[in-house]
Amino acid sequence: MIVEMRKGATKKEIDAVTARAKNLGLGIQMNQGTDKTVVAILGSNTGQLQTDVFAVLPGVESVTRIMKPYKLVSREFQAKNAIVNVNGIEIGGKRLVVMAGPCAVENQGQLAKSAEIVKAVGAVILRGGAFKPRTSPFSFQGLKKEGLELLDRVRKQYGMPVITEVTDSNDVGLISSYCDILQVGSRNMQNYVLLSAVGQMKCPVVLKRGFSCTVTEWLTAADYILAEGNKNVILCERGIRTFEDSTRFSLDVSSIPVIKRASYLPVIVDPSHAAGHYQLVPSLAKAAVAAGADGLLIEVHPNPKEALVDGLQSLSPSDFTRLMRELKPIAEAVGRTF
Amino acid sequence: MIVEMRKGATKKEIDAVTARAKNLGLGIQMNQGTDKTVVAILGSNTGQLQTDVFAVLPGVESVTRIMKPYKLVSREFQAKNAIVNVNGIEIGGKRLVVMAGPCAVENQGQLAKSAEIVKAVGAVILRGGAFKPRTSPFSFQGLKKEGLELLDRVRKQYGMPVITEVTDSNDVGLISSYCDILQVGSRNMQNYVLLSAVGQMKCPVVLKRGFSCTVTEWLTAADYILAEGNKNVILCERGIRTFEDSTRFSLDVSSIPVIKRASYLPVIVDPSHAAGHYQLVPSLAKAAVAAGADGLLIEVHPNPKEALVDGLQSLSPSDFTRLMRELKPIAEAVGRTF
Amino acid sequence: MIVEMRKGATKKEIDAVTARAKNLGLGIQMNQGTDKTVVAILGSNTGQLQTDVFAVLPGVESVTRIMKPYKLVSREFQAKNAIVNVNGIEIGGKRLVVMAGPCAVENQGQLAKSAEIVKAVGAVILRGGAFKPRTSPFSFQGLKKEGLELLDRVRKQYGMPVITEVTDSNDVGLISSYCDILQVGSRNMQNYVLLSAVGQMKCPVVLKRGFSCTVTEWLTAADYILAEGNKNVILCERGIRTFEDSTRFSLDVSSIPVIKRASYLPVIVDPSHAAGHYQLVPSLAKAAVAAGADGLLIEVHPNPKEALVDGLQSLSPSDFTRLMRELKPIAEAVGRTF
Amino acid sequence: MIVEMRKGATKKEIDAVTARAKNLGLGIQMNQGTDKTVVAILGSNTGQLQTDVFAVLPGVESVTRIMKPYKLVSREFQAKNAIVNVNGIEIGGKRLVVMAGPCAVENQGQLAKSAEIVKAVGAVILRGGAFKPRTSPFSFQGLKKEGLELLDRVRKQYGMPVITEVTDSNDVGLISSYCDILQVGSRNMQNYVLLSAVGQMKCPVVLKRGFSCTVTEWLTAADYILAEGNKNVILCERGIRTFEDSTRFSLDVSSIPVIKRASYLPVIVDPSHAAGHYQLVPSLAKAAVAAGADGLLIEVHPNPKEALVDGLQSLSPSDFTRLMRELKPIAEAVGRTF
Repeated sequence: MIVEMRKGATKKEIDAVTARAKNLGLGIQMNQGTDKTVVAILGSNTGQLQTDVFAVLPGVESVTRIMKPYKLVSREFQAKNAIVNVNGIEIGGKRLVVMAGPCAVENQGQLAKSAEIVKAVGAVILRGGAFKPRTSPFSFQGLKKEGLELLDRVRKQYGMPVITEVTDSNDVGLISSYCDILQVGSRNMQNYVLLSAVGQMKCPVVLKRGFSCTVTEWLTAADYILAEGNKNVILCERGIRTFEDSTRFSLDVSSIPVIKRASYLPVIVDPSHAAGHYQLVPSLAKAAVAAGADGLLIEVHPNPKEALVDGLQSLSPSDFTRLMRELKPIAEAVGRTF
Repeated sequence: MIVEMRKGATKKEIDAVTARAKNLGLGIQMNQGTDKTVVAILGSNTGQLQTDVFAVLPGVESVTRIMKPYKLVSREFQAKNAIVNVNGIEIGGKRLVVMAGPCAVENQGQLAKSAEIVKAVGAVILRGGAFKPRTSPFSFQGLKKEGLELLDRVRKQYGMPVITEVTDSNDVGLISSYCDILQVGSRNMQNYVLLSAVGQMKCPVVLKRGFSCTVTEWLTAADYILAEGNKNVILCERGIRTFEDSTRFSLDVSSIPVIKRASYLPVIVDPSHAAGHYQLVPSLAKAAVAAGADGLLIEVHPNPKEALVDGLQSLSPSDFTRLMRELKPIAEAVGRTF
Repeated sequence: MIVEMRKGATKKEIDAVTARAKNLGLGIQMNQGTDKTVVAILGSNTGQLQTDVFAVLPGVESVTRIMKPYKLVSREFQAKNAIVNVNGIEIGGKRLVVMAGPCAVENQGQLAKSAEIVKAVGAVILRGGAFKPRTSPFSFQGLKKEGLELLDRVRKQYGMPVITEVTDSNDVGLISSYCDILQVGSRNMQNYVLLSAVGQMKCPVVLKRGFSCTVTEWLTAADYILAEGNKNVILCERGIRTFEDSTRFSLDVSSIPVIKRASYLPVIVDPSHAAGHYQLVPSLAKAAVAAGADGLLIEVHPNPKEALVDGLQSLSPSDFTRLMRELKPIAEAVGRTF
Repeated sequence: MIVEMRKGATKKEIDAVTARAKNLGLGIQMNQGTDKTVVAILGSNTGQLQTDVFAVLPGVESVTRIMKPYKLVSREFQAKNAIVNVNGIEIGGKRLVVMAGPCAVENQGQLAKSAEIVKAVGAVILRGGAFKPRTSPFSFQGLKKEGLELLDRVRKQYGMPVITEVTDSNDVGLISSYCDILQVGSRNMQNYVLLSAVGQMKCPVVLKRGFSCTVTEWLTAADYILAEGNKNVILCERGIRTFEDSTRFSLDVSSIPVIKRASYLPVIVDPSHAAGHYQLVPSLAKAAVAAGADGLLIEVHPNPKEALVDGLQSLSPSDFTRLMRELKPIAEAVGRTF
C-alpha cells in the first residue's frame, strides 16, 4: 500500500502515518521524493486492509493499494489450475464443457425435450431455472419447488447433472438436494449472506459475474465461498452493463484471459444473457471458446416462440445443433477436446 | 408496445403477430409505412409484458415498449406525493429530513456520541449499520445482533428514530423489531426475495438504488415492495458506477427530478457513498437539496480517523455542523423548512 | 417514429402533432389505446428526423425512433457485403487480412525491421503512426512528415500497403499521398470535419469506433464519409470505455455480429488498444476472428522494451509469430483463408 | 511511480528496472516487502512519464502512477484561483456568470430576440452555434459564416459578449474574429490539433468535457491549451455517458468539487445537454450552483417548438425567467453575487 503525502506535509503528519502502520503490525519504507514524501506500507495482508485507514489521516493526498483484495482464489495462493468435478465431468480440464437447457423450467415435457436435444449433440450438463429472479413482480417467477422436482426427475432420466439458480440463503439446502451445481446469479454476486451459505455446502457453485462488477470484485466475492470451505467454484462471465444498447449486456471477453492470469479457478461463459438475441449467441459462443473459456452455459428451448422467459435469447434445437457443430473445430484449434 | 416488422415481412408473419396479441387479450393497430409494417399493441398492461413475446416471432425486426414496466409506484397510479411517516417525522413533505450517523455501529460510546452530535445540529433520524455487507470476507462484518441492541438503546436515550440495513430475508423480522426504518442496500436492490420480505412488513423502507441500475429498474424494484402491501417506501440515490474514478461512485443528481416526474414516492440522497471522500460530501449534499431531494442520509463519525468502516467518507462533528449551517439557506431557497 | 401522448392529452394537442407531421410531408396513423393515444409517424426518412420535432409539443410524453439514423451504410441500403480493395488485397472477402506494425514510426531501422517481421509470418498490410494523438502535450507526438516519408520508403521496399492515422482535416491531402489506407482514430470518430475531408478522397479509410460511441453512432459517423462519395470504408472495433479497469478498454466483441446484421461494410478488430497488455492480445485476437471479424490490426514492435509509445501492448516478433500460427486453424474453422 | 515486481522476480529483473530509472534521470527507492519487491521511482516529472516504460520490463507485475499527468492546470502549479476576464466580465470570481441563448443561430430575428430575453433577466453572455457538429450528415449543420456575422451584429447591438463553437483547426482564426469566447465541444475535447490551435490565440476558451473522459483526461487536455500560451481556459461540465437512459447524459455534479481541489481554473456547467429535456434543466442548474460552479451555459430559445436543433432541451423565455429568479437565493446561499 502506497501512501502519498501532500506537498508540504509536516513531519508530525508523516509520523502519524508510520505510527499507524506500526500499530497494525506493518512495515514501512520512506520514499523522499523531490516534491513530496511517499510512504510504502509493507506486509503480507495489505490487500485486505482498507485504504481508508491511512487516507483519513491529515496530510495524506492519496492511498494506492498494490496488493489485490482477493486471496484464496488468487494464482499466488495456488499456482495449479483447479478442476471442479461434477459427477465425473471435469470443468477446468482439457474438455470444453457445454451446459445447456431452457432459461426456466416450464413443465415435464419441455424439460425432458430440452435434455434430449442438448444431450444428443454433445451438451453434458442440463440447465433450467426453478427460482427465477425477475425485474418485475408481475412477471412469471418460476415453478419453484415443483420445478426442482422436475429437474430431479429429468436428470435421472437422462443421466445428466443439473445446474439451477439459488436466490436466497434460506433455499440453499432445499435446492442443493435437487441439483448438482448451484448457480448464484448476476444480481446476487454481492449477496454475501447467500455466498456464505453456498460456501458451507460441498456442491459445486457457478458464480456469475455481477453485471456491473469488476473482475477484482468478482474474484473477491468468490473468496466468500472459499472462505467457508467450498472450493468447488466455477466463475461465469455473462456480460457487463455499458452504454451500448444493441445487445442486452456487453460480453467482456477480455475477462477470460484476465482471470486465467489472476486465478486458478475455471471460467465459463454465458453468451445468451450477454447477447439477448439468438442471432448473436453463436458468434459470442465461438469468441468465448477461442479466448480460452473452459465451458459454455447456453439457453436452448425446444420452441423459443413459446418460451415463458427469455425466448428471444434462446437457441432453437436446429440453431443449437449447428452451433455445436461449428464450435468443434474452434475448440480443437485452441487445444480442447469436445 | 410497438412491433416493427422487417422490410419484406410476409403477410403470414404479420398475421402471427396479430394472432399472438389477440391471444393475450390485447388490441392491435396496423401502421403500413412506405418500407415496412409497424404493429402497435394496445392494452393497459403492456408495460408488464415481455418484449420477447413478439420479438421471437419470424419477420419481427424490433419491439419497443412504450409503457413503463413499473406500475404501483407510478405517478399515473397515484398523482399526489406520498408522505412516509416515521414516528411523526414526515418524509416527502415540506421539511428537509436529515438522517445521519456512523457507517457501522462500533460500540455504545461511539453510537451515543454520534446521536448527540447529529441531533444537536438538526438531524432527526440516526443511521448506523449492524449487518454490514462488505466486499471482502476478511473485512469487519458489523456487530450484528449486539449492534441492533445498541441502536435500540440509543434511539430510546435520544428519542431519535433509527435506520439500519437488512441484508437477508431471514433477518427482516429480527431487525425490524430494533429499528424504525429498514434500509435495503445498493447491492440488494435486485434481491427480490428480500424485497418481498420487507414488503410484508409495515415498517418504512429506504430502498437504495442499485449502483448500476437505471431509474426504471429501481422503480420496478420498488414495485416488489408495494406489491406485497407495504407502501412506506423511500427511494435513496447513492451514486452510480461509471468510468469516472475521482469519486467512489458518480452521484446521479438528475435522478431526483426524473423520479419526481415519474413517481409520487419521496426520494432522499446519500452523498457519502457517492463521494467516497469527506471533502466532497458537502458539495454533493447541497446539490441534492437544490435539485429537490426530500432528505439526506449522511455518514458522520465522532472521530473519523478511528472509524472501523468508511472513515474517509465520514464527516467529523465540526464538518457536519458546518454543513448543516450551510444547507439551511439552500433548503429555504427551494421552499423547504429545515 | 412513435409519439406517445400523455394520459389525458387534449384533442388540440394531438392535432398539433398530426399537423406537424403533415407539414413535414409525413404520414400518420392514430393508435387509440385504453389509457393514451399513440401516433405513429410514417415516412421513409424518419430515421434522419430529430425526435425533438415532436417531443417539444405540449401533451407529448415521449417519442421513440423506430428507423435507424444511419442510411448509406445500412444493409437495407445495400444487401451485399462490400469488399474494399487495397492494392489488390481484398478486405471483407474470404481472406482474413492482418495489418500489423509498430504503434509509432520511430526510425527507418525500426520500421523496416517491423515490416520484415510481420510480412514473414503472413501480415499483408503495414501499420505505423506518424501523427500521434497523445493524451498529454508533453508526450512524444510522432515524427509527422518525416514519419510519412519513412512509411513511403518502407512500403516500396517491402511491397506492402501502409495504413497510418490522420488527425486533422488539413493533413488529409498530405498524408494520403504517402499511404494506402487512412485511419481515423477513436478520438476523432465524431470529428465531422475530418470525416467529410476523408470522404472527399478515394483512398480506403479505416474508421475506428469512438471509445464511448454506440454501434449506431459509429455507423452514422460512417455515413459522413459515404455521403461525400468515398465508399471504401472499413470499420474497426478497438474497445469501449466501461467501469472495468483490468484492461485498457473493453473489447466489444458483440459489435462484430451486430454490424454484420446492420451493415454491409467490412469490420476489423484492433485487439492491442483494447487489451493494453501484450499478454492479453492473443486471446482477444482469436476471439475476434472466431466472432467473424474480416481482419485484425495488431501492434508489433521489433523490441517492445524500447518502444517510444505503447510498448506494453505491442507484441514482440516471437509473440506475433506464435499468434499467427495459432490464428490459422481458428480462421479456417470459421471458413476463412489465411 | 510505483513499480511492483512479480513474486519471485530475479535480481537481474529488478536491476533492469533501476537501470532504466537511472537512464531517465530518475531516483529510486527499494521497498523489500515480505512477498515481493516494490520500487518507487522518484522525480518531479513522473506524472508525464508513460507507465509502459517500466511495465514492459520482465518481472514487472504492475506500475502505478502517483503523480497526476496534468501539470500546468494543476493547483500545485498555481494555488490561486484564476479569473478569466471577458470584456470586463469576470469568470471564476464572486459573481455567478450565466451564458444563455439558442443552440444554433437560425436567423437575425431569432438571435436578437434571444439576446433581448436572456439579457433582460440577468444573463451576461450570449451563446449561439454557427458551426454545428451533428451526429448525422443529413441534419442541419449550422449557418456557418453567415451565422458568425449574425452573432457579431447582435453582440454589438446588445453589448453582450458572445460564445460560439469551433470544430476544426482551420476555422479558429475566422471564428475568433467574430466572437469573445471560443467553445471546444465535447466531441472535440481530445482533438489535440484543435486544442493546440486555440492555445495559440489569446481569446478565452470554454473547454467542454468529453462525454466519456475522466476529470484527469479533461485537465490534461486543458494542458494542451495552456502549453501553447493561452491561459484563459474555462472548463465546462456537460454530462457524461453512462448506462442511465432517462436523461441524455448524466450530469457529473461531483466533477465541480473535484476540479476545485485539483485545479485553479474556473468551471461552469451546461445543464441543457446533460438533461436533454427542458423540464429537468432547472433542477440541474440549481444543483450546479449549489455545488460550487462559477457559471452556467444554458440553452434558451424564443420559441422552442420551432427550434431547428435541440428544441426539447431549450428553455422557453418564461421558463428561463423563472429559473433565473429561483437561482438567485441559491447563488446567494453559497456566497455568490448574481
